[in-house]
Amino acid sequence: SSIIDRLPSFSAALFEAKTHKRLTFEAIAKHLGRSEVAVAALFYGQARASPEDVVKLTQLLGLSAESLSGATVAQLTGFPDRGRAGPMPPVEPLIYRLYEIVQNYGYAFKAVMNEKFGDGIMSAICFSSEVEKEVDETGAPWVVITLKGKWLPFSRF
Amino acid sequence: SSIIDRLPSFSAALFEAKTHKRLTFEAIAKHLGRSEVAVAALFYGQARASPEDVVKLTQLLGLSAESLSGATVAQLTGFPDRGRAGPMPPVEPLIYRLYEIVQNYGYAFKAVMNEKFGDGIMSAICFSSEVEKEVDETGAPWVVITLKGKWLPFSRF
Amino acid sequence: SSIIDRLPSFSAALFEAKTHKRLTFEAIAKHLGRSEVAVAALFYGQARASPEDVVKLTQLLGLSAESLSGATVAQLTGFPDRGRAGPMPPVEPLIYRLYEIVQNYGYAFKAVMNEKFGDGIMSAICFSSEVEKEVDETGAPWVVITLKGKWLPFSRF
Amino acid sequence: SSIIDRLPSFSAALFEAKTHKRLTFEAIAKHLGRSEVAVAALFYGQARASPEDVVKLTQLLGLSAESLSGATVAQLTGFPDRGRAGPMPPVEPLIYRLYEIVQNYGYAFKAVMNEKFGDGIMSAICFSSEVEKEVDETGAPWVVITLKGKWLPFSRF
Amino acid sequence: SSIIDRLPSFSAALFEAKTHKRLTFEAIAKHLGRSEVAVAALFYGQARASPEDVVKLTQLLGLSAESLSGATVAQLTGFPDRGRAGPMPPVEPLIYRLYEIVQNYGYAFKAVMNEKFGDGIMSAICFSSEVEKEVDETGAPWVVITLKGKWLPFSRF
Amino acid sequence: SSIIDRLPSFSAALFEAKTHKRLTFEAIAKHLGRSEVAVAALFYGQARASPEDVVKLTQLLGLSAESLSGATVAQLTGFPDRGRAGPMPPVEPLIYRLYEIVQNYGYAFKAVMNEKFGDGIMSAICFSSEVEKEVDETGAPWVVITLKGKWLPFSRF
Amino acid sequence: SSIIDRLPSFSAALFEAKTHKRLTFEAIAKHLGRSEVAVAALFYGQARASPEDVVKLTQLLGLSAESLSGATVAQLTGFPDRGRAGPMPPVEPLIYRLYEIVQNYGYAFKAVMNEKFGDGIMSAICFSSEVEKEVDETGAPWVVITLKGKWLPFSRF
Amino acid sequence: SSIIDRLPSFSAALFEAKTHKRLTFEAIAKHLGRSEVAVAALFYGQARASPEDVVKLTQLLGLSAESLSGATVAQLTGFPDRGRAGPMPPVEPLIYRLYEIVQNYGYAFKAVMNEKFGDGIMSAICFSSEVEKEVDETGAPWVVITLKGKWLPFSRF
Amino acid sequence: SSIIDRLPSFSAALFEAKTHKRLTFEAIAKHLGRSEVAVAALFYGQARASPEDVVKLTQLLGLSAESLSGATVAQLTGFPDRGRAGPMPPVEPLIYRLYEIVQNYGYAFKAVMNEKFGDGIMSAICFSSEVEKEVDETGAPWVVITLKGKWLPFSRF
Amino acid sequence: SSIIDRLPSFSAALFEAKTHKRLTFEAIAKHLGRSEVAVAALFYGQARASPEDVVKLTQLLGLSAESLSGATVAQLTGFPDRGRAGPMPPVEPLIYRLYEIVQNYGYAFKAVMNEKFGDGIMSAICFSSEVEKEVDETGAPWVVITLKGKWLPFSRF
Repeated sequence: SSIIDRLPSFSAALFEAKTHKRLTFEAIAKHLGRSEVAVAALFYGQARASPEDVVKLTQLLGLSAESLSGATVAQLTGFPDRGRAGPMPPVEPLIYRLYEIVQNYGYAFKAVMNEKFGDGIMSAICFSSEVEKEVDETGAPWVVITLKGKWLPFSRF
Repeated sequence: SSIIDRLPSFSAALFEAKTHKRLTFEAIAKHLGRSEVAVAALFYGQARASPEDVVKLTQLLGLSAESLSGATVAQLTGFPDRGRAGPMPPVEPLIYRLYEIVQNYGYAFKAVMNEKFGDGIMSAICFSSEVEKEVDETGAPWVVITLKGKWLPFSRF
Repeated sequence: SSIIDRLPSFSAALFEAKTHKRLTFEAIAKHLGRSEVAVAALFYGQARASPEDVVKLTQLLGLSAESLSGATVAQLTGFPDRGRAGPMPPVEPLIYRLYEIVQNYGYAFKAVMNEKFGDGIMSAICFSSEVEKEVDETGAPWVVITLKGKWLPFSRF
Repeated sequence: SSIIDRLPSFSAALFEAKTHKRLTFEAIAKHLGRSEVAVAALFYGQARASPEDVVKLTQLLGLSAESLSGATVAQLTGFPDRGRAGPMPPVEPLIYRLYEIVQNYGYAFKAVMNEKFGDGIMSAICFSSEVEKEVDETGAPWVVITLKGKWLPFSRF
Repeated sequence: SSIIDRLPSFSAALFEAKTHKRLTFEAIAKHLGRSEVAVAALFYGQARASPEDVVKLTQLLGLSAESLSGATVAQLTGFPDRGRAGPMPPVEPLIYRLYEIVQNYGYAFKAVMNEKFGDGIMSAICFSSEVEKEVDETGAPWVVITLKGKWLPFSRF
Repeated sequence: SSIIDRLPSFSAALFEAKTHKRLTFEAIAKHLGRSEVAVAALFYGQARASPEDVVKLTQLLGLSAESLSGATVAQLTGFPDRGRAGPMPPVEPLIYRLYEIVQNYGYAFKAVMNEKFGDGIMSAICFSSEVEKEVDETGAPWVVITLKGKWLPFSRF
Repeated sequence: SSIIDRLPSFSAALFEAKTHKRLTFEAIAKHLGRSEVAVAALFYGQARASPEDVVKLTQLLGLSAESLSGATVAQLTGFPDRGRAGPMPPVEPLIYRLYEIVQNYGYAFKAVMNEKFGDGIMSAICFSSEVEKEVDETGAPWVVITLKGKWLPFSRF
Repeated sequence: SSIIDRLPSFSAALFEAKTHKRLTFEAIAKHLGRSEVAVAALFYGQARASPEDVVKLTQLLGLSAESLSGATVAQLTGFPDRGRAGPMPPVEPLIYRLYEIVQNYGYAFKAVMNEKFGDGIMSAICFSSEVEKEVDETGAPWVVITLKGKWLPFSRF
Repeated sequence: SSIIDRLPSFSAALFEAKTHKRLTFEAIAKHLGRSEVAVAALFYGQARASPEDVVKLTQLLGLSAESLSGATVAQLTGFPDRGRAGPMPPVEPLIYRLYEIVQNYGYAFKAVMNEKFGDGIMSAICFSSEVEKEVDETGAPWVVITLKGKWLPFSRF
Repeated sequence: SSIIDRLPSFSAALFEAKTHKRLTFEAIAKHLGRSEVAVAALFYGQARASPEDVVKLTQLLGLSAESLSGATVAQLTGFPDRGRAGPMPPVEPLIYRLYEIVQNYGYAFKAVMNEKFGDGIMSAICFSSEVEKEVDETGAPWVVITLKGKWLPFSRF
């Protein structure tokens, strides 16, 4: 079965309306004043929508009151049950490449961060991310992912 | 046992010399003309050193011919056996946060990339990464990781 | 349950029509100008169809507009959620043999490729594959699988 | 620790002599009349050497009687304990790409083979493999792996 | 849920008809000219039926055209998706005992076979199996399983 | 490292003496009045030796009192810590084929045994096994493994 | 979903009737002349009912012919597909405690049994079990589980 | 390697002295006023010795001050790091049978205990166990394991 | 699918009524005289309700007799099948943090408890827990989780 | 082997000196002005020591310059490689109870925290913990663990 079956019940409606309206995540993100990654995460049930997000989404996607019930609105603005979109280790080649970066460079990231910041972690909660496209001089496209997280030092106790 | 035991035999010598010489990855990276992440990866046996890197490293770290034998040079400039620095899923909190980002936002990254680039993946091979520090208006430090990879479209066959 | 239950919803319709029309992957592949492996992968939801592929498939398989809805066309030409056709390690004996080749000869392949090409990987994305039949002098059939992938050197960074 | 530690005791001696003599797998393969993949597999303890292979290897690598004891010769010409060179799923990026091909195209290979050959498997025992380099018109190198195995039909019983 | 739910859709019909007709695997096997193990495997979707098998099965089991549709016949005579009848390691005590024999005596079997046959494997494809009952002098029943497979030597390449 | 490292400390001495004396398991088995499989299992620490077995083994293998200490004799005649010779699922191709037979035919074996014997299991303890070689009319060798175990009905309680 | 969903289809009917009739396993066990543990196992599809058990159960539970169809009777008196009631390691705290006893005292049990009985196992097939309640002098309740299994010595072969 | 290598450093000394003195766990248990299971667990580092136990053990086993250093005494009377004697699921056939009992009868035990005692668990801490031998009328030996644990009701909070 | 699908059938009704009535766990907990953690656990089917809890819950949540059938009441006041609310290791970030605390500080907790209490465990059965909110001088909120469990010393036996 | 073997090299020296000086974690914690849990975590290599901590520890434990080399001091004040003290799921009964609390009450904790704090997590980094002993009116000891972490709301992006 497709990934839609593993997602919250509202996901199918959102993806369908997006396809129908021929909207990009970029367009929706601009309309909501959010990042494309966050909007896509919201479609997959991995991020929370504010009530204003829901109003704007409904209008933009042309969703009628029937297709987006009160229960669905509650679910969209509720507290996501994160981490369930796909299996780990990822089997999807695109997502596996990100996993492989963590596998290969994890300790290098740790060593560099510890040196620059001390004993702590980069937060994945107080966190944002963007995906941008760059084209090099040969015309080849490159992906640039930015992961920005607050530095949290381990408390001394 | 410490992580050193799981690494190539040259790692201990490199880390010890770095500590002894009070050198940062930043300083070594500048000397080698490489990224800090790549240099740290090289210390962990996850990246390859060029012969010039080895000469520069040896000088900067003050490594005598004895401590860095021919076999070690061969290993440093050889083909790394990547992916073995630590377990997956990571048990180290800092590295786990990166893993969690892949777990939570993996499909969101895929959806945004597919929309922007088509059917393909971001290469983790034709790839570079940087870690930078930003300080916000309240004085709080933030980590900014940049992951840059070439876009590879699936071949039609 | 049979494997059909684990596949995208269009798979059942495609396989059924193929059986009904007594078409081989070879015939479909010729009609589409693609490899048999790619066509089979497309049936399993592991490869993407171009709009032209869909037109040709529909005609060849005699699929009416009803059996292949707009949503299905969108799914066929959309971005596949790859890697889900079966479990790993494979339990199917034919597929396990391929897995065993990777298990037994993986480091041998790596050593030979590193020697021939340097530090890098064979792409599984910029990639094509063929399956051919050979018959030896005793009349015994042999399978010849060709895996062809672009060589990607690790970036120096 | 490096991969050498996980291999049969003769592996280190073979790899060291190969490096010292600046021999390629290609050269050794020609000398032994075998495939490069088989020779590399032999270095990793995943294939068996014939007594003639050992004689030729010893001469070519310049191994003295001391470095290659009777026990080692027995081990080289003995029955390999296959499958232990590395973990599965592979963590090495190059080997993972081969694994991913099995994961993504496994059922496509099965469907095509069943259609071409009937109910059975491609043998991984009555089997050979080659790695070749091709350069396309843009000068980019491509890897071509050939996997050739005898077709074994399931017995009717 | 019972094991029937994990099997091909035709399994339930076959088992039900077998119960209804009070037929044993022994009787069906004789009628089909096959081994009881093969017939049971066929019921579980782990072996392939020839068109003649289907005709004979239908008659013997008294299956009407309705209960065994064309799609079911196609599935019975198609290429089985083997290996899915139950989990590994087995949780069923009877099947676990067989698994334990492989676990405890696996290397002993290998050592004896290598000595008797050389470097290779016993095929599980070019293979047949029988289960027989023996009663010892005390009246106690014993199970005798025969596993017969062609010896396949590793190709030299 | 080779499998010897994972075995009881006496294994290396036994295998070495066997190689040195050019003895087969068949010859040793005859001398001990046991099955070849049992003798190989004994070498791998998976079966128990009687005091008489130890006397006969010592003589036949020409082991001096020094190489086979009292502690070793105690270990050989002690209670084996079974099940540790290799990993499960097996990575060795020969042993995997046996595992695959259990995976593919496990429920078929259960169905046939239940029909022939009732509710119970074939014992893997009150058990013996033999490996024999057969050569068919074309001169091709076949392996015949016999597994014989007492039938144990589930107690009614 | 509740555990009922993972059980044979007759389980729900049995548990419901037991609740409705306010019957304890103790009462049912007495009526059937079996142990409470066996009766509970029968409800979970982990033990086999004799035809007499089914008659007695039906009467005691007041099950009409409709609720317990012929297929259900066949399933109850058939050969259970054991081992599927719950996951291992157990997540249920009560069952985990039993698992922990095996984990902590497993080798102690083995050592004591080997000393008392020789080389063999305690059968889990030729086996019975009881759960009893004891109250100590402070009024605190204690559980006493008795596991009784036939000793099976390893065959010498 | 044998199980001794996975145990606390004192285990080897204890087992060796026990063998040398030809003492049974039964004899040691009587001398210490403890259960055989507890004494065996103590040998495997899974139970704690009191200072008096150490004195009595030392005398009975004839251990000199040298073989049982102060550090060893501290370890014996310290807090065991339980649960590490062997892998789970167990690969040892004797221990696996106990595991299988939990797998097959776990929910039956839970159902019977809940009925007899309410909502809670049988403690594996406030717990004791015995192994006894019974011989039936045919002379066949049976193992009787008693597991006795305090009933702990879930707190209402 | 959302977490509701993995829970007992009554969970959906309880959560819906709670949302509809705009009740907090705090309010429900006060009404029932229980802890918020226990009440939430009850909603997830991980804790048991007393008959009085059910009466109070029904009234407070305004549940009609229809929505809460006799079977549901039986399930609510029955014996929970604990441990199934989510996967372990947890994929939900909030729950993972608690898991990480056990991973990082587990042995520290053990060492401190052993020192303070001796050889034993903190009960997770005879146990209660609370979650409280604290706000520090900067206005930042902190979570304070209290885990209180009876100390259970290992029995000497 | 004991847990000491899995820990940083300084751990053995610290534990030995602590035993020798008959110091409790409580006493060391007071001397360092830290929590007992943190001090124990430091002994297990799971927390970082400040230079002042090292000075105070050295004095209190009576460690000479020889036993605590410069490399060890560097390791103690370096960046811990956390998460490696023991396996997960824990096999140690005391630590398992904490894991079970996360398994059973994880979603209850999430629901209560989401209600009290919104969408976010309790930090395990900006975090402290204490273990206290309480004795109830019957004289029975209770463990009270306090987990205090900063609340981190998910960033809106």
